[in-house]
Amino acid sequence: MFQITHKDGKARCGILKTASGTVQTPFFMPVASRGTVKALSSEEVLNLGFESIISNSFILSLYPGIDVIEKLGGIHKFSNFKKTIFTDSGGFQVLSKDFLLKKSDEGVLFKDKTGKKNKYTPEIAIQNQFKLGSDVAMTFDDVAHYGLNGKDYVDAIKRTHLWAKRCLTEHSKLKTEYGSKQLLFGISQGGTKAEYRRFSTTKINRMEFDGYALGGLVVGEKRVELFDTIKEAVKCFDEHKIKYLMGLGSPPDIVWAVGLGVDCFDSIYPTSNARHGALITSKGRIDIFKKKYLEDESPIEEGCKCDTCKNYSRAYLHHLFKNHELLAYKLSTIHNLYFMEKLLSDLRKAIKKGNYSEFSEDFLKEYFSGNENKEFSSNIQQKYLEKEIKEGARFLLDWKR
Amino acid sequence: MFQITHKDGKARCGILKTASGTVQTPFFMPVASRGTVKALSSEEVLNLGFESIISNSFILSLYPGIDVIEKLGGIHKFSNFKKTIFTDSGGFQVLSKDFLLKKSDEGVLFKDKTGKKNKYTPEIAIQNQFKLGSDVAMTFDDVAHYGLNGKDYVDAIKRTHLWAKRCLTEHSKLKTEYGSKQLLFGISQGGTKAEYRRFSTTKINRMEFDGYALGGLVVGEKRVELFDTIKEAVKCFDEHKIKYLMGLGSPPDIVWAVGLGVDCFDSIYPTSNARHGALITSKGRIDIFKKKYLEDESPIEEGCKCDTCKNYSRAYLHHLFKNHELLAYKLSTIHNLYFMEKLLSDLRKAIKKGNYSEFSEDFLKEYFSGNENKEFSSNIQQKYLEKEIKEGARFLLDWKR
Repeated sequence: MFQITHKDGKARCGILKTASGTVQTPFFMPVASRGTVKALSSEEVLNLGFESIISNSFILSLYPGIDVIEKLGGIHKFSNFKKTIFTDSGGFQVLSKDFLLKKSDEGVLFKDKTGKKNKYTPEIAIQNQFKLGSDVAMTFDDVAHYGLNGKDYVDAIKRTHLWAKRCLTEHSKLKTEYGSKQLLFGISQGGTKAEYRRFSTTKINRMEFDGYALGGLVVGEKRVELFDTIKEAVKCFDEHKIKYLMGLGSPPDIVWAVGLGVDCFDSIYPTSNARHGALITSKGRIDIFKKKYLEDESPIEEGCKCDTCKNYSRAYLHHLFKNHELLAYKLSTIHNLYFMEKLLSDLRKAIKKGNYSEFSEDFLKEYFSGNENKEFSSNIQQKYLEKEIKEGARFLLDWKR
Repeated sequence: MFQITHKDGKARCGILKTASGTVQTPFFMPVASRGTVKALSSEEVLNLGFESIISNSFILSLYPGIDVIEKLGGIHKFSNFKKTIFTDSGGFQVLSKDFLLKKSDEGVLFKDKTGKKNKYTPEIAIQNQFKLGSDVAMTFDDVAHYGLNGKDYVDAIKRTHLWAKRCLTEHSKLKTEYGSKQLLFGISQGGTKAEYRRFSTTKINRMEFDGYALGGLVVGEKRVELFDTIKEAVKCFDEHKIKYLMGLGSPPDIVWAVGLGVDCFDSIYPTSNARHGALITSKGRIDIFKKKYLEDESPIEEGCKCDTCKNYSRAYLHHLFKNHELLAYKLSTIHNLYFMEKLLSDLRKAIKKGNYSEFSEDFLKEYFSGNENKEFSSNIQQKYLEKEIKEGARFLLDWKR
């Protein structure tokens, strides 16, 4: 099911086999919460080279409904994505203020957008993902929000373990009954507190999952805390197991985490940035809204082989974004996702050659050299990027020591 | 430059030659006012089989600016559209309440969105289109709005003729100076009043344009008035000239107008309808928002060979539209434009075989047979469609008499 083929320090390459084919690791999954990677068709996502996407079973249960997609032949047929599909249980969403009414060990009571009250339990989460027919299902976990106090963390961890066991039981019951090849991944919690995370990860590691994930991260922690946690937590999983870090997605973050032994990533980072005009280049992101791109006839990145860079200038993209033209979102998403898949492909090549370390050093040096990193203007992104550079650079130093 | 190759009654097939290649007539042009057919890349538009699109030089002068596009190598390079590009002068837009401050024989004073006052004259309209480097430029005409009184119509017609002459003079000056192959089409006005339209069309026909257009139509007239006008006006142009009906675009309208001898069309009809979930089938439009499509696993139209119908169900499209997913607009636009290009291609084949009459009768009978034509729900479209069916059917009877 998962085989490691190459190692380079803690970084490794491997192959994950699912009912829909193979996925080369380490890999990044574009997010397709509603069964669509925003702005792209499934054919376009496959053409970019991705072997896997992640959908959200909770969000799909709200619309069009799990039974509807089951009737239509499952999530692959519905969204015409012919390779591996992960589904998240949607723990993060159902536990947010938008939906949550009550939480107990039994499960969750939430209100949908019509105001109707609904139950959500580990069993329902597993049944839903089973009906969707995804290749990899995720356990329903109790995601503790960043900044909670000790007791809340402990409660969330205990409940996560209880629910993980119930997910496992329900999943093996369904697999036996229907003979499915769906895989189930367990998720550890514990925020960035070393002892909590170690406790939870060790516990989840002892359960018989097909894969193992770190959840509840990338929710606002400091970069150094985040990476210290990843470093320690990864060690609590058996080495031969596949390790998935949920929600991580900026290029430097991925480079660092691959170096710590992580095999699998998903994040809205490239797609959400794309739709806000933040285009990823090897020298960091550029803000295509800036006036300096009005007459810039070069592509987003010189030498980039994506369909956007082959055919369109920064000036054209600037024009499309300034006028809210729909084509802006497609062209920018294609470029940002191409960048991600190329980065992961380069990382896999580097690991296979045994030069992860040189590759990542060169990549990060160039990534943080871009002028625009320092003068990035668009509101929240400005602050985020400043933090990213400062903490990223510091982490890079820590990491090299 | 324009050659008629086949005739079938008043309908005809031909070839238009421009600096960017040939366009088979009759043809329909998708609208790309800002240098983009909304939601599609230029490669996608070309893959659909279109040999021509129409952009708007006035709208492009507002952003990113004519000089910017000229510096970047012109409209073809800017938007990466390698075949024929028409540009409209934007008379319809600059004369609207949004922009117009003052109008005289000299030209127009308008305020842009920053509040700045600008001049717009026939000479400027021609210079702008020349700088953009489109293959076909249109004269700047004084578009009389529907429902004006007699004197206003006469004024608009007189000014249209005065401006047409000035456009011609400016254009031949520029062509001589720079040796360009850009074509210039003249536009007649006169609304649906037979004597005004005849007067204007005859006058424009006498001027030395490369092509001839009917302007100021499809602005709210009754279907019967509209087609009576087209029928009479087309006769006022010499038969061997190319005839362009601006703004017409519903499938039955095009079928009728081709039968009256029109060679060229443009309209936002297929693309705008697409973005509102009104998908064109051979049995009329369907409203994909309707609940009955929630679990409908068939494609938009059985047997349709467009990329949307080959890969996605009505249920998936319904889901995308209900959730405002960006992919909805791309998939629906691809289908609607594929339908249009296939219709025009079928019309060309029918004319070449001498069976325009049978083809159009069959097509219209099927088009108006759709159940959903009678129960179309989405607000304005409801009213429009009712009118379309009633008047269309009546016109069809008139036309067959």
